[in-house]
Amino acid sequence: MFKHGPFSSVTSARFLGGFFGPIIKGVRERMLPYQWKALNDEVPGGEPSGCIRNFEIAAGLKDGQHHGFVFQDSDLAKWIEAVAYQLRLAPDEELERLADSVIDLVEQAQMDDGYLNTYYQLHDTNKRYTNLRDDHELYTAGHMLEAAVAYYQATGKDKLLKVMERMVAHIARHIGPNEGQLRGYPGHQEIELALCKLYDITGNKNHLALAEYFIKERGQAPNYFVLEQAKLGRDFPPRGAYGHTYAQHHLPVLEQTTLEGHAVRALYMAAGMADVALRTQDQALMNACRALYQNATQKRMYITGGVGSSHLGEAFTIDYDLPGDTAYAETCASIALIFLCRRLLEAELIGEYADTMERALYNTCLAGMSLDMQTFFYVNPLSVLPEASKKDDRKRHVLPVRPKWFGCACCPPNLARLLSSLALYAYSVKDRALAVHLYIQGDITARVNGQDVSLTVETAYPTEGSIRLRPSDGAYDLMLRLPAWCREYRLTLNGAPHDAQLRDGYLRIKGPFKNAEIALELQMQPRRVYANPLVAEETGKVALMRGPMVYCLEEVDNGARLHQLFLPKHAALTWAQDKAFPGNQVIRADGLRLQSESTSLYSDSPGQFQDAPLTFIPYYAWANRGENEMRVFVHEIQ
Amino acid sequence: MFKHGPFSSVTSARFLGGFFGPIIKGVRERMLPYQWKALNDEVPGGEPSGCIRNFEIAAGLKDGQHHGFVFQDSDLAKWIEAVAYQLRLAPDEELERLADSVIDLVEQAQMDDGYLNTYYQLHDTNKRYTNLRDDHELYTAGHMLEAAVAYYQATGKDKLLKVMERMVAHIARHIGPNEGQLRGYPGHQEIELALCKLYDITGNKNHLALAEYFIKERGQAPNYFVLEQAKLGRDFPPRGAYGHTYAQHHLPVLEQTTLEGHAVRALYMAAGMADVALRTQDQALMNACRALYQNATQKRMYITGGVGSSHLGEAFTIDYDLPGDTAYAETCASIALIFLCRRLLEAELIGEYADTMERALYNTCLAGMSLDMQTFFYVNPLSVLPEASKKDDRKRHVLPVRPKWFGCACCPPNLARLLSSLALYAYSVKDRALAVHLYIQGDITARVNGQDVSLTVETAYPTEGSIRLRPSDGAYDLMLRLPAWCREYRLTLNGAPHDAQLRDGYLRIKGPFKNAEIALELQMQPRRVYANPLVAEETGKVALMRGPMVYCLEEVDNGARLHQLFLPKHAALTWAQDKAFPGNQVIRADGLRLQSESTSLYSDSPGQFQDAPLTFIPYYAWANRGENEMRVFVHEIQ
Repeated sequence: MFKHGPFSSVTSARFLGGFFGPIIKGVRERMLPYQWKALNDEVPGGEPSGCIRNFEIAAGLKDGQHHGFVFQDSDLAKWIEAVAYQLRLAPDEELERLADSVIDLVEQAQMDDGYLNTYYQLHDTNKRYTNLRDDHELYTAGHMLEAAVAYYQATGKDKLLKVMERMVAHIARHIGPNEGQLRGYPGHQEIELALCKLYDITGNKNHLALAEYFIKERGQAPNYFVLEQAKLGRDFPPRGAYGHTYAQHHLPVLEQTTLEGHAVRALYMAAGMADVALRTQDQALMNACRALYQNATQKRMYITGGVGSSHLGEAFTIDYDLPGDTAYAETCASIALIFLCRRLLEAELIGEYADTMERALYNTCLAGMSLDMQTFFYVNPLSVLPEASKKDDRKRHVLPVRPKWFGCACCPPNLARLLSSLALYAYSVKDRALAVHLYIQGDITARVNGQDVSLTVETAYPTEGSIRLRPSDGAYDLMLRLPAWCREYRLTLNGAPHDAQLRDGYLRIKGPFKNAEIALELQMQPRRVYANPLVAEETGKVALMRGPMVYCLEEVDNGARLHQLFLPKHAALTWAQDKAFPGNQVIRADGLRLQSESTSLYSDSPGQFQDAPLTFIPYYAWANRGENEMRVFVHEIQ
Repeated sequence: MFKHGPFSSVTSARFLGGFFGPIIKGVRERMLPYQWKALNDEVPGGEPSGCIRNFEIAAGLKDGQHHGFVFQDSDLAKWIEAVAYQLRLAPDEELERLADSVIDLVEQAQMDDGYLNTYYQLHDTNKRYTNLRDDHELYTAGHMLEAAVAYYQATGKDKLLKVMERMVAHIARHIGPNEGQLRGYPGHQEIELALCKLYDITGNKNHLALAEYFIKERGQAPNYFVLEQAKLGRDFPPRGAYGHTYAQHHLPVLEQTTLEGHAVRALYMAAGMADVALRTQDQALMNACRALYQNATQKRMYITGGVGSSHLGEAFTIDYDLPGDTAYAETCASIALIFLCRRLLEAELIGEYADTMERALYNTCLAGMSLDMQTFFYVNPLSVLPEASKKDDRKRHVLPVRPKWFGCACCPPNLARLLSSLALYAYSVKDRALAVHLYIQGDITARVNGQDVSLTVETAYPTEGSIRLRPSDGAYDLMLRLPAWCREYRLTLNGAPHDAQLRDGYLRIKGPFKNAEIALELQMQPRRVYANPLVAEETGKVALMRGPMVYCLEEVDNGARLHQLFLPKHAALTWAQDKAFPGNQVIRADGLRLQSESTSLYSDSPGQFQDAPLTFIPYYAWANRGENEMRVFVHEIQ
């Protein structure tokens, strides 16, 4: 059904059982209905959204004022997009009915000239496009456009697509490089990648050109946002968390070599850069994009795939600055990192991109929601002391328990759309090969080497390392990602050891296939992982991982003051499945606790070590047993 | 000359040579003339003060508007107070002339009704006392009152004293517990301890009663500041860095058990509590004060004697929260801690109070100024990465190099007055004993056991541990503090070993004395000091001290990325005098640097250790060789 571009790989998918089956089902059966309620202000105790109501007022169906943020509409957009992906996985009459009805409402809310943004419609339409830096009109349009494309692809219904084509036309009339246009670009990137999707299904090159303009105009002199803010009578200092780096217009994108500013903006931008570069064959732009990826993942990423070290500006800071207890590491930023990785995989089949995607998915993204999928984190720290979160304003953003909903609710629906579209991230097609990036139990079909092929995957990965794959018969290859963390593996074809070529992190199993059954066994020993010594925060400390999953200590298992715990360098790490723990698994080790009986704050004694059994659970499963301390990196001792 | 109360101990003092002689001379010859220029806006490149000019405008001598903070007058007050203390140490015609002339100006600026505060005088006198929470009128009056008392004591001149008695009378008419008065108290404590000084020299019990009222009214219900801010039409949320704890009115002081909020406010309050308790024999108040001291020093103080862990509200946070790289640890807060310790010593002769005083003095306070005494720190961190200070808003307050002056210039003149009045902190009189808290080369006289006695101290302390004391003849005792950090000492009287009673940290050498010469030799080996394991920031790390001085690593001696350095547990520590280093001394040790050749951010290798000679300099001498990294606590390895 995807006709062009990177997301053309998978034509259908079904995920049942395994690790993700229940999660994807949970998104459909619990999260999306719950989020629908939230968008309709029907969640008791949650912050009101006002999202649907804003559309109703804009459509003339209700009286009232706009509620919420300038980008409030985007919450609905992400919900529609998630519903669309779910409808591709399995029919759901109720979700489709709700989506159809709300799309009717969106159409009714659209202005005659094509403009659509309830904030400006309910405030002052004369001010449209006057504050691109802050006011998210293009961002919101981008999300609604992604929803429109996805819903069209899932259902064939084009009502929302037509709405958004009109809105894109409105934008393109007012903003651009031509005489009489505003020479601006989005304050929050997002529409760039959405325009590429619109180009993919329409073939209309104007959409690609607009995306390219937005990418390449950014940061050019004279600085558009400085001029714009001056027109608004506002001084706009270049420095600081909310200066020019905040929205990445400090330099033209081709000259940017580090990821700066607001992490979600920066990574949506990088994803958009890749999208444009892929479609225009722009090597310089792709190289700039790759440099940003490398800066992020080699110098500015938490072990959990979290990015954005500071809550001030929800931003990147400086290389190797990865504090655990004041981290921001927004769920949406890790989702954005996944978007970027997936596009880089389209450009080059290099396993590292998929490794990063998997790191972000199984840790920060999954930690963004509770196991019951009813509460959500924005911020995903590496260590939490609840008392500090309550009393220290520098850590007030670091919540020890997930709230039900947020006034600014970008993360929950973003998670919903990611989890509903995993098929698009798990697979890609390259020449005559179907590449498998993520091991998810299920069946998919894809168009490879001119033929329709299917693949069945059976696995409990990442709980277990055994993966069985049954490709349909035909003349094509399979490329199976061998994660960089995997020290040993075993590959068999129809029961016999198979010697596949390993290149750039992928095992190539050459077709043609005939009744083929492939088994890939990844060694899943718990392992010690160290941050590069350049990371000041973690010097002398170690984290535990197993497969793609980072583990952590929680107070409920290990007692308070987790920073006093030490893991001896040679302590055995014992993994077990155990339903008594959230995530149903646990790593145990014999550790030590540094104690002191002294009340002195400073003394000539470092304290005494006492035996302390250590219990680690998967990071994604933390904060599911009430408020308590959590810590990923633990002191290591010889 | 001090007639009452705690500061009646020393009648005269002269400090030449030794460690502090040149510093005290430097205050007189360089710092006070420099600060006079700053107050007169004559420092090129420094932020303008406007302080003197504000008085000139208020006096009708110039036209113009008020410049600077609402407490701008207090900078002049602290300068006058420092001059007064210097005049007690040695005559200085020029400083006295300047002080006399500016006191004339202050008198001219005073309103007919006695009110004095240039901010309100140059804005709107109808608004006086309407915003006690924020507007520092009582704080500023307190500082000017301290200056008036000190100047009267130093010179016998009472012009400023009369001015301030009129201002105190104005305050007492408008604020207090009686019908028709504002039932308020200072938003920034300070006047409480100043009123006690005024009571000491006048014997007027109204002043003590007003101080006691300010202390005890604080935090009573209904909350005065909530009512006041409501009158101003402002909401005043109780929580957060600028909530009710910020100015310590969250609870009545007798119910406060932890030091909360703005550190300078909190410690000036505690000092005022002690002052009132000492003069009213209020045991409950003194106990409350002691509890606050214990909370500060057992749970909320940096190894350098710095206090106030967060720049948000310049405030205390929670127990054991002592981050090094985001510390606030304002110079003024450590000065305030010294004020508190000195008053507690007056209540009880317990060496710990003097130990804390000394810790704050030789580390945070002295680090508050450059070795040339021309530039100053507000913020005294335990580790600095200059790139982070420039680019990370969370650390922008942590400067790697001292600026010349500040728009808010509380710290430099506060240092000037502390260093000029060290005699009052080094000694006290208790019954028949003269107690020596700080070992400072010089001569002092004091009134002990009904007689005038003198004491000559010869020492290079704390550079060396040898102290010679020659008490004048007479029937009294000497009590010499034995610092808690001192593991071995040798005491001789007239050359023979002397077996003095050691109690509460003091060695009692009983008189009568006749041509007595006492030698105290304190062992000054460099030593390893550990934070209590409850301090998460420093677990697994060690700091070096020698005597009262904390040492630190600087990049200029040890290379960049100081966090990669480790000190082996059994490495020898070699101290030497060495003029090549700021502070003229150095500790050297064979250390290790953890390196990695990998560009991976996370890997299964912790990196490799390489030999790295370590060079530590005294903390107070850091940042005297340009912008570079600094770090106090270093990783320790077995």
